[in-house]
Amino acid sequence: MSCLLRDRPASTPEMLTAFSDEALLRAALTFETMLARAQADVGLIPSDAAETIAIACAELPDVVSLAEAAAHAGTLAIPLVALIRERIADPEVAKLVHKGATSQDLADTALMLQAKTGAALVLRDASRLAQALAVLAQRHAATPMLGRTLLQAAQPITFGLKAAGWLQGVASALARFERETGAIQMQLGGATGSLAGLDGRAGDVAERLAARLGLPAPETPWHARREGLAGLASSLAILTGAVGKIAGDIALMAQTEVAEAFEPKVVGRGGSSTMAHKRNPTGCQVALSASIRAPHLAATILSALPQQHERGLGGWQVEGPVLAELFELAHGALAAMAIVVEGLEVDADRMAVNLAAARVGSDIGEAERLVARALNAYPKDR
Amino acid sequence: MSCLLRDRPASTPEMLTAFSDEALLRAALTFETMLARAQADVGLIPSDAAETIAIACAELPDVVSLAEAAAHAGTLAIPLVALIRERIADPEVAKLVHKGATSQDLADTALMLQAKTGAALVLRDASRLAQALAVLAQRHAATPMLGRTLLQAAQPITFGLKAAGWLQGVASALARFERETGAIQMQLGGATGSLAGLDGRAGDVAERLAARLGLPAPETPWHARREGLAGLASSLAILTGAVGKIAGDIALMAQTEVAEAFEPKVVGRGGSSTMAHKRNPTGCQVALSASIRAPHLAATILSALPQQHERGLGGWQVEGPVLAELFELAHGALAAMAIVVEGLEVDADRMAVNLAAARVGSDIGEAERLVARALNAYPKDR
Amino acid sequence: MSCLLRDRPASTPEMLTAFSDEALLRAALTFETMLARAQADVGLIPSDAAETIAIACAELPDVVSLAEAAAHAGTLAIPLVALIRERIADPEVAKLVHKGATSQDLADTALMLQAKTGAALVLRDASRLAQALAVLAQRHAATPMLGRTLLQAAQPITFGLKAAGWLQGVASALARFERETGAIQMQLGGATGSLAGLDGRAGDVAERLAARLGLPAPETPWHARREGLAGLASSLAILTGAVGKIAGDIALMAQTEVAEAFEPKVVGRGGSSTMAHKRNPTGCQVALSASIRAPHLAATILSALPQQHERGLGGWQVEGPVLAELFELAHGALAAMAIVVEGLEVDADRMAVNLAAARVGSDIGEAERLVARALNAYPKDR
Amino acid sequence: MSCLLRDRPASTPEMLTAFSDEALLRAALTFETMLARAQADVGLIPSDAAETIAIACAELPDVVSLAEAAAHAGTLAIPLVALIRERIADPEVAKLVHKGATSQDLADTALMLQAKTGAALVLRDASRLAQALAVLAQRHAATPMLGRTLLQAAQPITFGLKAAGWLQGVASALARFERETGAIQMQLGGATGSLAGLDGRAGDVAERLAARLGLPAPETPWHARREGLAGLASSLAILTGAVGKIAGDIALMAQTEVAEAFEPKVVGRGGSSTMAHKRNPTGCQVALSASIRAPHLAATILSALPQQHERGLGGWQVEGPVLAELFELAHGALAAMAIVVEGLEVDADRMAVNLAAARVGSDIGEAERLVARALNAYPKDR
Repeated sequence: MSCLLRDRPASTPEMLTAFSDEALLRAALTFETMLARAQADVGLIPSDAAETIAIACAELPDVVSLAEAAAHAGTLAIPLVALIRERIADPEVAKLVHKGATSQDLADTALMLQAKTGAALVLRDASRLAQALAVLAQRHAATPMLGRTLLQAAQPITFGLKAAGWLQGVASALARFERETGAIQMQLGGATGSLAGLDGRAGDVAERLAARLGLPAPETPWHARREGLAGLASSLAILTGAVGKIAGDIALMAQTEVAEAFEPKVVGRGGSSTMAHKRNPTGCQVALSASIRAPHLAATILSALPQQHERGLGGWQVEGPVLAELFELAHGALAAMAIVVEGLEVDADRMAVNLAAARVGSDIGEAERLVARALNAYPKDR
Repeated sequence: MSCLLRDRPASTPEMLTAFSDEALLRAALTFETMLARAQADVGLIPSDAAETIAIACAELPDVVSLAEAAAHAGTLAIPLVALIRERIADPEVAKLVHKGATSQDLADTALMLQAKTGAALVLRDASRLAQALAVLAQRHAATPMLGRTLLQAAQPITFGLKAAGWLQGVASALARFERETGAIQMQLGGATGSLAGLDGRAGDVAERLAARLGLPAPETPWHARREGLAGLASSLAILTGAVGKIAGDIALMAQTEVAEAFEPKVVGRGGSSTMAHKRNPTGCQVALSASIRAPHLAATILSALPQQHERGLGGWQVEGPVLAELFELAHGALAAMAIVVEGLEVDADRMAVNLAAARVGSDIGEAERLVARALNAYPKDR
Repeated sequence: MSCLLRDRPASTPEMLTAFSDEALLRAALTFETMLARAQADVGLIPSDAAETIAIACAELPDVVSLAEAAAHAGTLAIPLVALIRERIADPEVAKLVHKGATSQDLADTALMLQAKTGAALVLRDASRLAQALAVLAQRHAATPMLGRTLLQAAQPITFGLKAAGWLQGVASALARFERETGAIQMQLGGATGSLAGLDGRAGDVAERLAARLGLPAPETPWHARREGLAGLASSLAILTGAVGKIAGDIALMAQTEVAEAFEPKVVGRGGSSTMAHKRNPTGCQVALSASIRAPHLAATILSALPQQHERGLGGWQVEGPVLAELFELAHGALAAMAIVVEGLEVDADRMAVNLAAARVGSDIGEAERLVARALNAYPKDR
Repeated sequence: MSCLLRDRPASTPEMLTAFSDEALLRAALTFETMLARAQADVGLIPSDAAETIAIACAELPDVVSLAEAAAHAGTLAIPLVALIRERIADPEVAKLVHKGATSQDLADTALMLQAKTGAALVLRDASRLAQALAVLAQRHAATPMLGRTLLQAAQPITFGLKAAGWLQGVASALARFERETGAIQMQLGGATGSLAGLDGRAGDVAERLAARLGLPAPETPWHARREGLAGLASSLAILTGAVGKIAGDIALMAQTEVAEAFEPKVVGRGGSSTMAHKRNPTGCQVALSASIRAPHLAATILSALPQQHERGLGGWQVEGPVLAELFELAHGALAAMAIVVEGLEVDADRMAVNLAAARVGSDIGEAERLVARALNAYPKDR
């Protein structure tokens, strides 16, 4: 779980930061702050109480001791709320912290705030990768190469057709991911999702809280409905798979005996601790590793779907760390392959040599038309 | 794989039929028939040749020997096309069978024709289940019961709120499934997806073939882009999980010590081979089993995403049987739970007793308002 | 689930037969027969009653209607026991059918009888594959070839070293599988695993039943302890992965541009429906597909481990179909690769050419010594 | 990945430490130190060179910058070896660092050193849990309670029988885990596993290195044979599942309406942020979460089995973080449930009441005999 030497090579500093302890704590404190302010907005608690709470939520507590306390209590909310209350002199105000909320309200909303940050990073780099793929497909729309099926020489294609297929895979996976980010919503349900404990003002509080957090308000609390998270997780894994497909193809093309395309030369990257001559497909390695892991992570969240009654035991506790890993791996794969595709060294001459050696003719069929169709479908202005 | 005694209890006769050998063969023969007719439509082959091919595709061949031949050849298309050709006297016409297509064109299109049938069944019974849940939520909107969190008594809710949550889970999963059925498209790419071998008329042939099959035509061939299938598979697993959530809750409510709800009495169902008094939650069992299996099946298809080059080795061969199982399990769960929910025996008195015994007060918060919101969001005219 | 056209290419006729409806029914009827005889052995029921039961169990009932009835009842045992009883004229004898047993006793024992047959097939063909690998390693102990790491040319090895590694992988996975077959045990626990209902003679009955079935007797009933099955399932998936490793390497070596090794030529195998020149690595395809699917199947059985109380709801119902698939896929992979390895066409000249072209020197280190060590460790007399 | 607030509640400080950055770095430096000393032992390099290297390996480098460098290089070994060399004044000695080894030798051996520490912790706490279960089974061998099947009242058992079953599950899973720890071996293969680069002294160096590291030496290098790791991972997941079974049962027994057993009262544990009266089964929650996640983690390592050629691309990079998580989750579950079982509050009176209410008689069959058999089989001296 917590080993930077293992996590960093598989992800990016930005995404690791988005799902760091500090980010989680900041998100949790934001929830408590905004909950108080939302209640003040609708007159449920005094405005100055809300500001006192906000001030008590300003400083990040010590992570190590809080993690220990959360492990003991079984939930982060309990020690965190206790700690916030300790910082407030007036006991009447202290009692107003976390009013009407339950542990999972804090946990879910904090996770969603982190997911929102993560989603923006995924969107940015998936778009960047798609753009690079579009350029590649355009440039090589008519570059003949050997088409290969079942890992055997088959018939000619163009390299642009291959790149266009990569683009379509990423673009469709990205579109699904964007749709599934609709699940990134605020959570406020109270103990059993009935919105008790808010003096009949739950609807207004929820609306104000959502607005203050910058997260959509759900139709109703979703403590035990996790289909949205499962859809989001699946879409991240599918996107990772689409990137893994590119990585696999490039790694195969980069084989010594094929030698048609190579990751860009970067000083100090892709070397070997034994062999000075080597140039390893290190970006592809990141994406391939991610595409082995991501399906199992998505499935983990699916396995946790049948959560018991109003709030389950064990199921939703699974989602936080696993969704974080999915964001981390997906972004690691995207960022690595964006660099690879942008700087890909393509040897069109070698492609021609390999094609000729395979003696499969030169009919590239409608490859160029298909590239045009694929590029046309991809939104240029992204 | 092929054991009716194990498959039937987990699925339905309709879905097992949709993915049977006969259905697969019929779909494969339909592909070859419609491919010939589509080519005749655009003047690529003579109309009477197309009809000769259609006639040769009319009769289902023997499944056992064909399965043996497919195993030997490594693909169904090879022996099936050979068999169709044998049925055609004129060797010039025989050569026109499968013109411009590759094995995977047949395999993918046949799978998609089966998936289209399967999707209609899923849609029908998910809608039926949702309808039954809506009725239940409405009826019990104000029926108080104990809310339970972490498997412990928490605070009051209404049974309608619980049922409304089930409805929302199924409805949102169904909406995702419907979106993902967009992946159910025709496949025609030829050997390497370049649409060679169709004499420059590939675009027209593809359009006619799609129309004749009743399947959408893809932008371009998708031999090595499997994100759509992965999305479809994930959505089936998520839908199954949403149903499993209901099954888990009902099974917990049906526990002897809780006794708040029971599967409908059906003669001969839910009995025990040892204990005459027992009434087992057999429908819930079907859905719970499905929700254990489905995540792993969806993940299998995700693991197969990075398929090599123009058509991969081993990856796409995974999808047919696994997608079939997902449809079968999802439908088994939906059909079983539709019956359970439609006939659910609810003991509101016992709910009241359990609630009182827990001494957690009677504040149901905004449960009724939340039920109304949930029902309002669910399309009534479905 | 039940589609021979999809199942047969992924498995073998022998294994599909071992897990067929007929085999399951035969195993279930054997359980009831031997249960009665075991009870007669210890004097719990009259010998002629046991023989009457045995006769009533002789004829296989109709699979389709029984599957329907099992789906309705929620378990195979209920309609099957009812059917056996119907065949017995004397109602007192009829009552003795299934005496002291529960549905899961029948289901588990039948599955274990099938698993025993399956295990023998796996053992046979894994040994055959290992033997072929040992021959290959021996023959090519000193055949130089390019070692490849991260899909790049690295330093020289010998082909024997590569084959020896394949052998070690299979041999160690096979050893694990053999250990885990210890889980293939008889099940007899009665309704709640307390061995009630056998008039105080449960220990003796269990011993006799085990002897008659040719299955070991467990220490105690294992209705809700499924670790053994999980170990067996995992070992099958690991064995499949060891075979998939070989398949992946051979498929890479068979690439047109590498051309160092090829699957044996078999008329009608590995062809293409479009391209007459192709020779697809069809055996490797079977093994690679299996190695994508098997991990998820093993994980399914692991996900089902926490089964509730004395006998769970949904969990153990997962194991039968999933374990069957694991046996089927593992055996399909083993049988396919045994043929591939036995007949592998190795082009040592091309290996030399590829090695020279990579300009990585000729130091094969201690490759030959390592081959000898590996071969020495592998039991020759297997 | 790296979030203590999420990782700590799911694991233990000891195990998190065993797989921390510091532990990984320390293990990696130990590998380089002992490699040099082993080479000095056999006279391959001067002894004082080895000691110079050892001194250069004494101080832990900065984790953050090293993680960044490892991500850039694609492997930890490259920047770490460079950093060690920089610390050595004599360039001839600096060159001797990492002599004959490859990146994966360092990565695998470091992981195995961590796994050895982890395995000792698992063994310790699994034994502790088993001991507590044996005590529980003994104490309640004759305490009658309701047996439950398919979540319904079935027939009587004793609580000792249930606890004995838990014990057997843990004990058998622990035995498997112990067997699979045989895979925790040293790795030394050089660039392509041929043990080149050690001047013909590879066998002796390997033997000395293994002795110095306190790890067994493998028959031959295992760069691309990962079955042992897969077996280890599977055994951890199975052990976690065995613990999850206990957690699930206790959580069901602790339900308000059942009230037969409770986690021990610990101040500040199991509370609710909303409901002061609640006593949540927090230890069970940890184990249940782990048992949802572990199967997917084990399957991840199985999916990575078919690694290409002499050292693969992407596959083995998966294993480090995933195996670490498995150790962390397994230990979290074991430690949590050891406390729960040791302090379990059992309400035998309530068990009697629930049993009587179910009206299923009082025949506990051979429950006591079965408990004795189970206890007898469990090694008492552990």
